[in-house]
Amino acid sequence: MGLKSFIEVDLNSHFPLENLPYGVCKPLHGEGFSPRPCVAIGNHVLDLSVIASSGLFNGPLLSKSSDCFLQTNLNKFVGLGRPAWKEARSTLQKLLSADEPTLRDNASLREKSLLPMDKVEMLLPTAIGDYTDFFSSMHHAKNCGTIFRGSENPIPANWFHLPIAYHGRASSIVISGTDIARPKGQARPVGNSPPYFGPSEKLDFELEMAAVVGPGNDLGKPVDVNEASDHIFGLVLMNDWSATTLSPWIVTLEALEPFVCDAHKQEPHPLPYLAEKTSKNYDISLEVHIKPVGHEQSSIVTRSNFKHLYWTLTQQVAHHTINGCNLRPGDIFGSGTISGPEPESYGCLLELTWNGTKPLSVNNSTRKFLEDGDEVIITGSCKGNNYNVGFGTCTGRIVPSRT
Amino acid sequence: MGLKSFIEVDLNSHFPLENLPYGVCKPLHGEGFSPRPCVAIGNHVLDLSVIASSGLFNGPLLSKSSDCFLQTNLNKFVGLGRPAWKEARSTLQKLLSADEPTLRDNASLREKSLLPMDKVEMLLPTAIGDYTDFFSSMHHAKNCGTIFRGSENPIPANWFHLPIAYHGRASSIVISGTDIARPKGQARPVGNSPPYFGPSEKLDFELEMAAVVGPGNDLGKPVDVNEASDHIFGLVLMNDWSATTLSPWIVTLEALEPFVCDAHKQEPHPLPYLAEKTSKNYDISLEVHIKPVGHEQSSIVTRSNFKHLYWTLTQQVAHHTINGCNLRPGDIFGSGTISGPEPESYGCLLELTWNGTKPLSVNNSTRKFLEDGDEVIITGSCKGNNYNVGFGTCTGRIVPSRT
Repeated sequence: MGLKSFIEVDLNSHFPLENLPYGVCKPLHGEGFSPRPCVAIGNHVLDLSVIASSGLFNGPLLSKSSDCFLQTNLNKFVGLGRPAWKEARSTLQKLLSADEPTLRDNASLREKSLLPMDKVEMLLPTAIGDYTDFFSSMHHAKNCGTIFRGSENPIPANWFHLPIAYHGRASSIVISGTDIARPKGQARPVGNSPPYFGPSEKLDFELEMAAVVGPGNDLGKPVDVNEASDHIFGLVLMNDWSATTLSPWIVTLEALEPFVCDAHKQEPHPLPYLAEKTSKNYDISLEVHIKPVGHEQSSIVTRSNFKHLYWTLTQQVAHHTINGCNLRPGDIFGSGTISGPEPESYGCLLELTWNGTKPLSVNNSTRKFLEDGDEVIITGSCKGNNYNVGFGTCTGRIVPSRT
Repeated sequence: MGLKSFIEVDLNSHFPLENLPYGVCKPLHGEGFSPRPCVAIGNHVLDLSVIASSGLFNGPLLSKSSDCFLQTNLNKFVGLGRPAWKEARSTLQKLLSADEPTLRDNASLREKSLLPMDKVEMLLPTAIGDYTDFFSSMHHAKNCGTIFRGSENPIPANWFHLPIAYHGRASSIVISGTDIARPKGQARPVGNSPPYFGPSEKLDFELEMAAVVGPGNDLGKPVDVNEASDHIFGLVLMNDWSATTLSPWIVTLEALEPFVCDAHKQEPHPLPYLAEKTSKNYDISLEVHIKPVGHEQSSIVTRSNFKHLYWTLTQQVAHHTINGCNLRPGDIFGSGTISGPEPESYGCLLELTWNGTKPLSVNNSTRKFLEDGDEVIITGSCKGNNYNVGFGTCTGRIVPSRT
C-alpha cells in the first residue's frame, strides 16, 4: 500500500509521500543562501523556493501567492488558510509521485531542488509572535496536583471548565539540536531561611506537542469553536524545559486526518462556546529517550500518546480568543505535558520519578532529574497501513550554567 | 532657559528640543507611504527617513548604519546601543537648533521632512517580540494583597527578594487611540454554583509605564545589573487593561537623565545579582483621566509618579536574564501598576474604589469600574527649568463586547 514517490522512501521513514511536512532549511555549506521553505520526502528535502520560482505551484490559489515560498519563514504560507494548504499538498504529492515526469525526468531541476537531509540545517519554521502553553492532560494535572498539594482534590476546580494556559516566551524558543544551559536563579531551601542563588537543581523535560496557528483573527473578534480547525496548520514535537525546543517539521492536519480518533469525554459538559459539534483528537505515539553524555545508547523513559489530552486543539483556539484576544499566523499553542494514565506514560521526570522519590534507570545509571550532559530525544509518529506519518525528532542537550 | 529650536515650541509642550522622543508615523493621507521613524518637536514630527536619505546622519556610527531609519519600525535603531543613540540625539539637537542653517534655511528639505503632528498617524514604535509585565510597586502589591487576601501579610513572601513578573501577550498590544472591546469570559458568582459566561463586569485600567529594550543578550548569558542600563532605550506610557495600550513616543533615558532620583530603599538587601552600585529611579509625574461617552470634559482620577516603584528598571533586566532568558531589541517591560502611598495616587480602579466599595466621582456621575464608552487618558511628564520632557498621552475607549 502507500503512495509511491520516484524518490526512495524507506518503509520506516517518517516522511513518505503521505506526510510531506513543512520546514525551513538552509544548505549547510551554502554561503549566501537565505533560509527557505521546504518539505521532507524520505531522506531528502524539497526546496519550495525553487519549485515556486519554476512556476510549478500552478493551482488557482498559489499561482497568485507563490511568493509565500520565497520567504525566510512559513508565516505567509500558513496565513493563507486551508484551501491553499490543500492545493499545495496536492501539487506536491503529484510532483513527487512515481508516475509524474515533470521533476522526475528533469535532472537539472532535481539537482537544484532536492537536497539530502544531512546537507541542510533546519531552522524554526515560523517567526513566532506569541506562544501559549496549555495544561490539557488530565493525568498530568492530577499527578502534579497530588505531588504539590496532596491527593485530595488534586485538580483545580476550574480545570474541567476551560483549557487552562499560561503565556510563554517567544524569544527563547529554539530549534531541535540546540544546547540548553542549565538556568540559575533563587530558591528557598527550608522554613524561613532566606533565598539562595544557584543553578537549578530539578531540571526537567516536558513531553509536549505544539500546534502552529494558520490564519489569525481580529482583536475583539472570537473564533467559533466549530470553525477553529481552519486556524490550525499543523503540529510539531515540543520539549518545554528551560528554553523551549521545537522539532523542525510541521506535520499538517491533512496528513494527520487518517489518524483522527474520538476526543476525551468531557464531564461536566463545557459551556456553549466550548461545546463542539464534532470533537476530534489524534492518535500520535510519543516517546522520550535520555542519552547521558559519552554514551552511544539512549534509554527510553516514557511512551505516551497525543490522544490522552482532555481538551482539544479547537477548544484551545475557541477559549484563547473568547476574550477578544487576536492570534497571528505562526503563533504556537503548546499542549502541556502529555501524560497518559499509566506510570510508564507520564510526560516528565517530576511525574516519572514522583518528584525524585523513585529514581529512574537510564542506561547503567539512575536519574531523579536531568544532569549536565544529558541529551533528551523526543520522537513521535502515527502508524498507517504500511507507512508512517512521523514527526522526526526533537532533541537538546543540557550544558552547565554559564558562570 | 531651555534649548532653542527654529521650530516654534510652546512653553507647555511635551516635546521641546530637550526631549526628542522617537516614534513611527505614517502620513494620514499619504497613499503609498510606508511607516517611518520620526522624532517629535513641538507640534511637528521630523521624518528621519528623509534626514537619513539626505545624508545628515553623518556621525561615525550612524553614517554606517543610517538604514536603521529606513525601516518600518525602530527595532534596528534601538538595537544599535547607547553610543549610536547619543550620536543621533546630538545630530538631531544640532539640526533642529535655532542657530543651525542646514534644515532651517532649506525650504524644500523642511517641506519634505517636517509634518504637522495632526497630519500623521502614529503606529507602534517597535515590533514587539516579547512583553513582560512586572509588579514593581510595593503600594500596589500591598493594596491588591489586602483586597484579595486580607491585611495580614498582604505582600507575598518572595516579593521583596525579586522583581516578580508575568509574561504578557504581544499580539494584543495596540497604539494609543485604539478602541478596546470589553472582554467576555467565564466567571463564578458564589459558592459552588457552576461558572457562567458573559462580558467582564469589573473592567479596569492600570496606570503603567513600559521600558523599551535596546540591544538584547544571547540565550544562556545573563546581563549584569551594573551594565543593564545599556539595554534600555527609553520609556512609554502604558495602560494594561483587556488589550495593552502604549503611547507612541519613546522618551529616551538620555532625555530623562535630568530627572533621575534615588531609588527606593530595599530591605532586605537583595542578593548579589540584584545589588547595584548605583540605584536610579526617575521623577515622572503621571495622571489618569476618565472621559465618559458624550462628555466634553474628563475627570482626573489619580496622580502618581514613576519614582514610587520599588524595583528599578536595571534590576528588572538583571532578574529577567539571570536564568539565561534572552531579550531582543524592541521587547517591552511593563512596570506593573504604579501606585503611590496615598489613596489619591493609586494606579487602578480596583484600588481607587477599593474593589467597587467606594465609588469614584467622574464628572456628574460615579464609577466603580469602567463603563462602555469611557475613554481613559494617561499622561506623564517631567518638569525641567522652563521646559517639560513629556510623554504625550496614552488613550483608549471601551466599546461593548462583540456579540
